Amino acid sequence: MLKKAIVLIYDGLGDRPVDSFGGLTPLEYAKTPNFDKLASRAECGLMHTLGRGFRPGSDTSHLAIFGYAPAEYYPGRGPIEVAGIGLKMADGDVAFRGNLGTVDENMVIQDRRAGRIRDVEPLTKALDGLEIDGVTLIAKPGTAHRAGVVLRGEGLSSAVTDADPHEVGQAVWEVKPTDDSPEAKRTAQILNKFVAKTHDVLNKLEFNKERQSRGDLPGNCLLVRGAGQYRSFPSFKERFGFSACCVAGGGLYKGVGAFLGMDIIDVPGATALPDSDIEAKFKTSFKQLDSHDFIFIHVKAADSLGEDGNPEGKAEFIAKCDKAMALFNNLPKDTLLAVTADHSTPCELKQHSADPVPVMFYGEGVRVDDVTEFGERACAKGSLGHIEGKDIMPQVQNLMGRLHLIGA
Amino acid sequence: MLKKAIVLIYDGLGDRPVDSFGGLTPLEYAKTPNFDKLASRAECGLMHTLGRGFRPGSDTSHLAIFGYAPAEYYPGRGPIEVAGIGLKMADGDVAFRGNLGTVDENMVIQDRRAGRIRDVEPLTKALDGLEIDGVTLIAKPGTAHRAGVVLRGEGLSSAVTDADPHEVGQAVWEVKPTDDSPEAKRTAQILNKFVAKTHDVLNKLEFNKERQSRGDLPGNCLLVRGAGQYRSFPSFKERFGFSACCVAGGGLYKGVGAFLGMDIIDVPGATALPDSDIEAKFKTSFKQLDSHDFIFIHVKAADSLGEDGNPEGKAEFIAKCDKAMALFNNLPKDTLLAVTADHSTPCELKQHSADPVPVMFYGEGVRVDDVTEFGERACAKGSLGHIEGKDIMPQVQNLMGRLHLIGA
Repeated sequence: MLKKAIVLIYDGLGDRPVDSFGGLTPLEYAKTPNFDKLASRAECGLMHTLGRGFRPGSDTSHLAIFGYAPAEYYPGRGPIEVAGIGLKMADGDVAFRGNLGTVDENMVIQDRRAGRIRDVEPLTKALDGLEIDGVTLIAKPGTAHRAGVVLRGEGLSSAVTDADPHEVGQAVWEVKPTDDSPEAKRTAQILNKFVAKTHDVLNKLEFNKERQSRGDLPGNCLLVRGAGQYRSFPSFKERFGFSACCVAGGGLYKGVGAFLGMDIIDVPGATALPDSDIEAKFKTSFKQLDSHDFIFIHVKAADSLGEDGNPEGKAEFIAKCDKAMALFNNLPKDTLLAVTADHSTPCELKQHSADPVPVMFYGEGVRVDDVTEFGERACAKGSLGHIEGKDIMPQVQNLMGRLHLIGA
Repeated sequence: MLKKAIVLIYDGLGDRPVDSFGGLTPLEYAKTPNFDKLASRAECGLMHTLGRGFRPGSDTSHLAIFGYAPAEYYPGRGPIEVAGIGLKMADGDVAFRGNLGTVDENMVIQDRRAGRIRDVEPLTKALDGLEIDGVTLIAKPGTAHRAGVVLRGEGLSSAVTDADPHEVGQAVWEVKPTDDSPEAKRTAQILNKFVAKTHDVLNKLEFNKERQSRGDLPGNCLLVRGAGQYRSFPSFKERFGFSACCVAGGGLYKGVGAFLGMDIIDVPGATALPDSDIEAKFKTSFKQLDSHDFIFIHVKAADSLGEDGNPEGKAEFIAKCDKAMALFNNLPKDTLLAVTADHSTPCELKQHSADPVPVMFYGEGVRVDDVTEFGERACAKGSLGHIEGKDIMPQVQNLMGRLHLIGA
């Protein structure tokens, strides 16, 4: 009987026919004997992650796959990124993604990343706990120039625009409410005061003076974007009864895992880039099966290569992933493996698309079909037919005999 | 033109690959030339009875197949079982499944079935019509130790726990309300009084004294469970215009038929067990076509054998059913046949699962596809694709040219 599950998500894996590949997609074109061997012992299908005809973001697609309907649970990007850097949110918090940037005396951006500063901890520490009008600013360092930012207090709203103008040479934007509520108006006002204050505080900071004396740009303004309000909800463990962990290189995916209450497992060499050590991720995942019922593995680079419009690179990366897939020959017998993508990222489009992605379930009790190749068109003929992201977790539960009975 | 329809439901027919069958399911493994011959002249597909990823009970799945969405129409088990023993309910009635059991002077269960008593009519007769606080108890005999029980009166609720502790040696449970409504509180109070009263009345009964003098256990307590409130709704005939009947051995399935207003046809030899006389059921069904437009045939034992974890027995039973399927060679030309299951009951799990079940439509006008075998994976390739229970009746109506036009 199946007791554990691994859900392995290849970001942006799906694609469209590539002329130079004789009309094959990168996944169909790449040499993938290990993917195909698994497929030939799996039940296969195609997945429209958010439903047919919807073009998924990376955050929403993962929420859907893990059983959290984005329409109900998606809080915007801020809370997910903030969760990813380990910041615990409370009901009503408004969270933002943040950069420590460099601005001049007129608040015009000189560098959005403060000269690619490596560690912003001394800067966020100076900001963390600032208070304005009864609202507290919480700021924690992210990777490199990034920070997680939370406003905590009564009567806040996420209906506000960004302060980060996203472009050098532009002045920091005045934050504006995007609806007519008094909460949005108040949040915008307070946030504008905070942005000005971060400049005041950071400009005076010894740490920045030292940077400038070395010729480095100071991190003298907190640029925020992607406001989202956090509302507490049942964690993945509370929903499904699985102790779960997330094995990912990319910050956003760790964020999704942390947001849902999964343990975040760091793997040396997991870079979220084409050079990422996929085998290390799989080996770590197998070890985590000792202490977790459910492992979410995320592999990023197929998506980035699709966005680069690089089908050769994408096919090459897929072939590299295939080599690592050989490790699943040793999958424990009590463990289910589901392999899929969050969405397609066709090289031709250089962006996410609504094209469905292949999916396969492999393990004891699965109704193995006669698909022998893990590809977009091969999987279209699988017994699963066309499914949606929301169908993944019920099928995991079903194969384990853990679904609630409707009726008697 | 099709004028009549038979919907034949093999309970729990679907399954998962069985190792000792070389990875085939019991249905795929069993010799089924007659099923397969029908499939090769039918349009096939897979059905997720309550929708993909939902694990159906036997009651809810049948309601869904007959067009009664469980979320709207499922009243809990009580009213369905009560309908099955021929008891007519009125709006607001609260119905229960009941056992006549034996309790000692402290209301501790000695036997839940009163020594497997065969006929409880003298007992239910003594209880039928009792009144407490303006509420009437209606009790009618079911099969063997079973009874159908209804509370009739103003302001009742089905939000109450069971009195039946389901275990020998336990005292009869005190019924408690499961919500905060005054109706639930009142119903629980009255039901507790009724349970005590049934003990008083039955203990004094001459019939029980005679049983005891013969050394038999007395049926001296009415044990109720599975409260459900009856709300009137359009019958199957009112919904679809079909005069319908139900040919089933199992009480629950007769209950579903009666609940929907179908005529219940008893067939000698229809036992709901592996020894059931399937041919007799089919022959009776053909005769019923003279007086009915729609026949619901239910065959039970594949489900029970799945719950026993007995793939050999299940395959053997399926082969036996297949022999009877030869009778459909003589299906009248104006009659549609739909064959399916209510859900899968994988031998590996010994319980219902959400795995979809094969379905086929056979008769004039059907778009026969190239499926030549009635099995889980063969039907996955059928033209119907993946359907749900709620799609069955519309397809029946469609093939008969009886669907309402949307628009003009």
